[in-house]
Amino acid sequence: MTRSTILDGNSFSSADAGLLPSEDRELLERRRRVLGPSYRLFYRRPLHLVRGSGTRVYDADGREYLDAYNNVASIGHGHPAVVEAVHRQMRTLNTHSRYLQHEILDYAEQLLATFPAALDTVMFTNSGSEANDLALRVARHATGGTGVVVTAEAYHGTTSLVADVSPAMGREHPLGSFTTLVPAPDAYRRGGGAQLGEWFAGEITAAFGRLRSSGVRPAAFLADTIFASDGVLSDPAVLGPAVRAVHQEGALFIADEVQPGFARTGASFWGFARHGVVPDLVSLGKPMGNGVPVAGMVGRSEIVDRFGSEIPYFNTFGGSSVPIAAAQAVLDVIQRENLAARAEALGDVLRDGVRAHARRHPAIGDVRGAGLFLGVEIVSDRERRTPDSALALAVVNTLRDLGVLVSVAGPHNNVLKVRPLLVYSDADVALFLDRLDEALTLGSAAVPL
Amino acid sequence: MTRSTILDGNSFSSADAGLLPSEDRELLERRRRVLGPSYRLFYRRPLHLVRGSGTRVYDADGREYLDAYNNVASIGHGHPAVVEAVHRQMRTLNTHSRYLQHEILDYAEQLLATFPAALDTVMFTNSGSEANDLALRVARHATGGTGVVVTAEAYHGTTSLVADVSPAMGREHPLGSFTTLVPAPDAYRRGGGAQLGEWFAGEITAAFGRLRSSGVRPAAFLADTIFASDGVLSDPAVLGPAVRAVHQEGALFIADEVQPGFARTGASFWGFARHGVVPDLVSLGKPMGNGVPVAGMVGRSEIVDRFGSEIPYFNTFGGSSVPIAAAQAVLDVIQRENLAARAEALGDVLRDGVRAHARRHPAIGDVRGAGLFLGVEIVSDRERRTPDSALALAVVNTLRDLGVLVSVAGPHNNVLKVRPLLVYSDADVALFLDRLDEALTLGSAAVPL
Repeated sequence: MTRSTILDGNSFSSADAGLLPSEDRELLERRRRVLGPSYRLFYRRPLHLVRGSGTRVYDADGREYLDAYNNVASIGHGHPAVVEAVHRQMRTLNTHSRYLQHEILDYAEQLLATFPAALDTVMFTNSGSEANDLALRVARHATGGTGVVVTAEAYHGTTSLVADVSPAMGREHPLGSFTTLVPAPDAYRRGGGAQLGEWFAGEITAAFGRLRSSGVRPAAFLADTIFASDGVLSDPAVLGPAVRAVHQEGALFIADEVQPGFARTGASFWGFARHGVVPDLVSLGKPMGNGVPVAGMVGRSEIVDRFGSEIPYFNTFGGSSVPIAAAQAVLDVIQRENLAARAEALGDVLRDGVRAHARRHPAIGDVRGAGLFLGVEIVSDRERRTPDSALALAVVNTLRDLGVLVSVAGPHNNVLKVRPLLVYSDADVALFLDRLDEALTLGSAAVPL
Repeated sequence: MTRSTILDGNSFSSADAGLLPSEDRELLERRRRVLGPSYRLFYRRPLHLVRGSGTRVYDADGREYLDAYNNVASIGHGHPAVVEAVHRQMRTLNTHSRYLQHEILDYAEQLLATFPAALDTVMFTNSGSEANDLALRVARHATGGTGVVVTAEAYHGTTSLVADVSPAMGREHPLGSFTTLVPAPDAYRRGGGAQLGEWFAGEITAAFGRLRSSGVRPAAFLADTIFASDGVLSDPAVLGPAVRAVHQEGALFIADEVQPGFARTGASFWGFARHGVVPDLVSLGKPMGNGVPVAGMVGRSEIVDRFGSEIPYFNTFGGSSVPIAAAQAVLDVIQRENLAARAEALGDVLRDGVRAHARRHPAIGDVRGAGLFLGVEIVSDRERRTPDSALALAVVNTLRDLGVLVSVAGPHNNVLKVRPLLVYSDADVALFLDRLDEALTLGSAAVPL
């Protein structure tokens, strides 16, 4: 399962159970008994969390951690605006979209106003997985094809269909016969800019050609617009040529914004906008409700309407009152506090800070990202750009022990995946940089405290 | 789309927009513009709801409706225990299952204690669709087959895979090549009891045979244990022989408890338990969090563990803190207030009451169901059992105008689908019976007020 970057990169191993206090060992045993082996834990010494507030979470011993990873609580753990909106709506009404309610429309209109005009329709789901699943259904309906192109380490979710287009699931889960892969647009190793974009577009054209050769008609190119599981690949020159290639094949471009969307990647608000493209369909998720399950698919009405008028679709919780209230509160906070611009500015400060560390830490091979989505590539040899997964995991675990939460990504699990909350203070940024420096200094020599 | 029983049985048609006040027409227009045509509304004159409390919901004009349909708010709209639990958890922590938390385990253990001992593992999702999708993935992994048998009007959700096993989606959505149908076990037309069970088992065996003939190996028989979309078919003699037939084929039985579960169908708590069978996998959903999106799959550990140890699965919101807090509050209320026994008793009173109506209303062809899940079959000819969809829809719309919410089900849209909340008072039961009598008396002559 070496390719299973999403679920196993930074996972607890039961061999390390001895490192845990007895209370946590008991929780582990209960998990094993009732939840089964699908339920993995982060870190060599898993965290037992009991509280979250703003940019911090707290463990059962009262230790504080700076959250530089969880993009669900993007506007801060327990944000009072979301807490209050959900509480008010819970007391008022929580029902589905087969009754008229104006709140879902208020939110839909405000959300769509953040998109290019062509993206004028939204459907609500409960998860990014459901959103990607729906987007693929719509793309197949629109094109009459089934073939899907994704990047080599893509992860798009957990339903059967999206698992079949998620190579990050690892070799044990075979990809669909309708799925084919393209290499990820890795500017660090291939060089960036226009040349990278043209190369990537060529790979996509070739991939659709392979599908056609095996009798599979094109339906979609589905891509996370910051290629998170491929290692946080942020060169914005990539998607323009790619989307032209996709459309030449008669396929649709589905932008998976579950991770990069909602201002995470900076002032452009949506990851695709950094690339100067307009997708055909867009999937949304994680930070949309600050932890209340809500997600959705945005698309061009000429595509979505044809699907909707021919194929019944109803989602019981999707677009129901309480999830919409949470989503409304989140969007209001992001817009009122101008968090997209703040993410852009803080991201620059963070990347500059990490690049300054790189002068003292040769293990930092590359610092990239957009807004508050950073990738820090850890290498054993800068010249040869040799991935150093062991060191990356050591840094992740040391940071955990130093009170900062991050994880890893990429095909070699050697890219630090850093997603500070959008509401970081300047002091939070400084603390992060300080602790990262310390963790890199300790290096592989560090052992769990 | 005549077979599209789930989504179009009781839907608003834009041809009737003139019946609506201008404020609602404006909401309709906004819906059309931003949500697209997938978003259907209930009733000839859709309801614009603004508030819910206990067994009642209220429209924008302050009119009160007795909710005899929505099984999501099963323990009552805005139940204070759920409101408070969610509010407390929202302020405390809302994060995912990759950190240790004891609440998910407390809930998992309490939930599993309501199941037979063999069903000892649970995985959490956000929707019944995700739960059925996961159950099918697990069943395919366990059996090595892909073939799925479902009933003729089954509905199992909205992901690509479960839509492919949902004939209720209508002819526009072709079933999967791995899907085959059996007639529903309709005791009203075929006679009930042991003979019905044996016949049904024979149909299942034949269906798996058809799949094998076309090179498809069996994976699962997936059935809603009250066959809601097939018309609320409640004869408990059906699943025993069926499950034996399924196991003889080397397939698994997946009980879809999204609608019948959580005490809806009475004292047995789970729909499958009424049939005296133990499923291999069970999907849960709708009422689980009283409207907070939460769902899950329960199964035998020998099946679930094999999947979980080989295939990565992580669900960001599934099993996260707030959905679990909502689910915990719901389960506590159901158990503390003994609502399963109450559903059983109230269901008997309701069915007796409707049967008493049947003496005066020859349109009532059959009264069936279990607990607080009733089916009332409306016919134009009792002897010939001729479905009367027009009258059933008239009764549904008249009941709406009389302040009682129900809908229709079944292949002919002629079965009143009645799901009173589990917390009905005796007065609610009396009110429901009263209004049903009135609506049947008005019959097809009734026009919207």
